[in-house]
Amino acid sequence: MSRRAGARPTPLDSRDRPTRVLTLAIDLGGTFARAAVVDEKSALISVAKMVLLARTPEQVADVLAEVAAEALRLADNPKIDHYGVAVAAQLESDQGIVTIAPNLGWKDIPLSALLKKRLSAPVYLVNDLRAAAWGEYAAGAGAGVDDIFTVVVGSGVGSAIIAGGELLTGVTNVAGEFGHIKVATEGRLCGCGMRGCLEAYVGGHHLIAQMKEAVQSEPTALAALCGGDLDSLSPVMLEEALRLNDPAAHAIFERASSLLAISIANQITVLNPARLILGGGVLRHAPSFVRVIREGIERHAGAVAARAVEVVTSSLGDDAGLIGVALLASRPT
Amino acid sequence: MSRRAGARPTPLDSRDRPTRVLTLAIDLGGTFARAAVVDEKSALISVAKMVLLARTPEQVADVLAEVAAEALRLADNPKIDHYGVAVAAQLESDQGIVTIAPNLGWKDIPLSALLKKRLSAPVYLVNDLRAAAWGEYAAGAGAGVDDIFTVVVGSGVGSAIIAGGELLTGVTNVAGEFGHIKVATEGRLCGCGMRGCLEAYVGGHHLIAQMKEAVQSEPTALAALCGGDLDSLSPVMLEEALRLNDPAAHAIFERASSLLAISIANQITVLNPARLILGGGVLRHAPSFVRVIREGIERHAGAVAARAVEVVTSSLGDDAGLIGVALLASRPT
Repeated sequence: MSRRAGARPTPLDSRDRPTRVLTLAIDLGGTFARAAVVDEKSALISVAKMVLLARTPEQVADVLAEVAAEALRLADNPKIDHYGVAVAAQLESDQGIVTIAPNLGWKDIPLSALLKKRLSAPVYLVNDLRAAAWGEYAAGAGAGVDDIFTVVVGSGVGSAIIAGGELLTGVTNVAGEFGHIKVATEGRLCGCGMRGCLEAYVGGHHLIAQMKEAVQSEPTALAALCGGDLDSLSPVMLEEALRLNDPAAHAIFERASSLLAISIANQITVLNPARLILGGGVLRHAPSFVRVIREGIERHAGAVAARAVEVVTSSLGDDAGLIGVALLASRPT
Repeated sequence: MSRRAGARPTPLDSRDRPTRVLTLAIDLGGTFARAAVVDEKSALISVAKMVLLARTPEQVADVLAEVAAEALRLADNPKIDHYGVAVAAQLESDQGIVTIAPNLGWKDIPLSALLKKRLSAPVYLVNDLRAAAWGEYAAGAGAGVDDIFTVVVGSGVGSAIIAGGELLTGVTNVAGEFGHIKVATEGRLCGCGMRGCLEAYVGGHHLIAQMKEAVQSEPTALAALCGGDLDSLSPVMLEEALRLNDPAAHAIFERASSLLAISIANQITVLNPARLILGGGVLRHAPSFVRVIREGIERHAGAVAARAVEVVTSSLGDDAGLIGVALLASRPT
């Protein structure tokens, strides 16, 4: 649960009401959906969360309507000015269509239309990593600067770019697919079907796959750490095995972290951001990666760009996406 | 000489005069300086060119003032509204300072101030590759789209990014240093002092260095092509040797082109541009590189981004920088 989940609503001050802008924000992940009422100052008035038990678009839309109703109820059903949904997916935002959502197994789903039927309002869609970047930019680890590169290493690997205070979307709205840059020719097979993607070495699923391969093929402290239960292997255990100087763990980490660090350093050279914001479960649970990223920027990025960038970790955690999508949905157009 | 160099001025139509905006644009390279009077419709009214015989900042500023006077004279000395200079350098544009210009051997030179003394007007500075990208965007190969990645492979390797119709500058104005991304650990030594930069494999100087190494160490058609004169080796000869199926030339080309292609493909994945504009002497004289870049995008870039990008070559040639700096210098602020 979020640290703010289920919080009582902040009482609405009547003097504020005429200018207060409230947005119903939803963060649709692969396992959970969260909804929040967010004001124009990025305050979460209420938060609700539900598990996704089914994955058809209609069923998910039903859950989103339900979790939204719960967030509204917790906030005493205020009048909502805007509706926005952050989705771990490639989107046609203008059309309100989810083009590809690997976690949900969706392709070309008119999510905005499905939600409009249920919420009786237009619904803005945005990619979850962009929403989170925008949240950090407005109210978190990105505050105070206008040029940001965020890298999230969780089960998958992704990024978002803010340049000159604007999200970089790309012409077909798929900019930032940093997990799918190629770091090896004929390399490991990625979930996307291609070989040699950065994600195939560094993404959580792939790190764990490499740890399993190690346990099955060589002596390693990882075997004891997981108590023989391969399905319990996690990035936390990789970090622990590194502390035990386990050679197999070191080999996996060495390759993954150096590929990640050089890839990030190269983007620092090309984008010259003021801040690199790091997030995601792998970096949180295996902080050695963050150390290698810092060293890699120092060593591999262009000198002026390396000096200019501050490396920080995300500060809003799971709330970044809710805050970001709320602010984006309520932006004057 | 430029195809338009020394052209007679287009007669100014008196009806146009009140709204016509004229800019004196200068392109300061490592060997030549060119100046032009450019109108708000990107038309070059006049162009002049001079060789840089000396390289101290004062001497270069004198030459720039001279070539500017010549361009003005050719245009019948019209009233100039704006002054801009494109420089192959890292700049602090706001301060009018050239921080590093490798070609000129300059560091922290207040070029705007030096020119203001001579031209009696404020002078806008911009990086030459950004100026060229802006020129192509406004009036050349980038017309009609708002998301552009330009890659120039000449003696050096550089790039510029236009995202959502704006130049991406980075926080300290050094974004786009694509030639200095790292493509090999402990790789070839680059002119920047670091190892493994893309430029150390693909830049013209470095391609020629690799060709020299080949001639000196193995049998290769390159020896005959240069008639034994190593100093005459050029990218044109590399292309010729490829056509002769020369193994040494193939080895150099294979490595350089695949590193370039995968690096570009990765930026296509991250930036999702509508158009990739390729320019520079190496790509012009050794067009096999362009073929491999196209194949590399097809093969390595994210599928949606690869489908979205159109690969073209620059269409304004040497005039792109003059047009671009003119339009940037005359932009309403």
